[in-house]
Amino acid sequence: MKPSIRILLLAALCLLVSSAISQNNKSKAGETEIKALYDRWAKAFEARDLDGIMTLYAPGDEVVAYDISPPLQYRGKEAYRKHYSDFLSLFDGPLHVEFRDMRVVSSGDVGFLYALERVSGKMKNGQSMDMWLRATSGVQKINGKWLIVHDHISVPTDFDTGKSLLTLQP
Amino acid sequence: MKPSIRILLLAALCLLVSSAISQNNKSKAGETEIKALYDRWAKAFEARDLDGIMTLYAPGDEVVAYDISPPLQYRGKEAYRKHYSDFLSLFDGPLHVEFRDMRVVSSGDVGFLYALERVSGKMKNGQSMDMWLRATSGVQKINGKWLIVHDHISVPTDFDTGKSLLTLQP
Repeated sequence: MKPSIRILLLAALCLLVSSAISQNNKSKAGETEIKALYDRWAKAFEARDLDGIMTLYAPGDEVVAYDISPPLQYRGKEAYRKHYSDFLSLFDGPLHVEFRDMRVVSSGDVGFLYALERVSGKMKNGQSMDMWLRATSGVQKINGKWLIVHDHISVPTDFDTGKSLLTLQP
Repeated sequence: MKPSIRILLLAALCLLVSSAISQNNKSKAGETEIKALYDRWAKAFEARDLDGIMTLYAPGDEVVAYDISPPLQYRGKEAYRKHYSDFLSLFDGPLHVEFRDMRVVSSGDVGFLYALERVSGKMKNGQSMDMWLRATSGVQKINGKWLIVHDHISVPTDFDTGKSLLTLQP
């Protein structure tokens, strides 16, 4: 083998190995960044900061959300923003959010996460809300920034009574 | 510049470009493969083939599912299998599944998908089930095979009545 070919092969091997290591590091970095995205979401949500929340979502029609209240789906960021606004205006003062059993999985510029999520707060009608939800999100790195493109929030259904199970605890 | 260095740089450039193209092709191939995973899931589910369904899920404790019926979460494949078995045994004959507005997103060895999902069938108690659900899943390529690691299935809640909205249509 010619020395130049040997060097070429060695360089190619180095590139492949460093590419594999970099992929793995990127996955871990991605998971840390996605976790930070959710810390920012929780902070903005607790402060009932609608603009702060919405900067964490992808623009335009990318966002599709299945929320705990109807309809079946919210399509597009504007529809979801309106829904967030209606929800946040029910409350008096800050909300509180607690995550349990959160798992974040990512590779390249795509990730998803899921967690049990406790939401509590004092409502303007005098009632208190304190509920454990199931939360799943799909995220994408768009122009170098992780953004939420999909949310799915729910509680289970009791098929004997047709009721939503709003008081379950993990 | 020495010719050997020039060749080396050219080779490195080719490798980087082909790596970028290959990443993009992999994403698209991933999305096609994940779609095929869900075609297999639908076929097995319609045939009430419990083993066929469960081969599409990751092994052991990887699987965490938030289903339409309680508890809040099923942790591990065995718990989820038992739940699938209980559900499938409610039915007489095949089930029918229809997806609408499905979106599949993937990068590397991670993906997620969401869709509205209509499930219908004749139950052993004589009743018929025909329901639109919201379905979100997280998938991972494990040992070269795409497998489901997370499911989230629900309908929305009517907070005025506390009822689950089981008859919504898209």
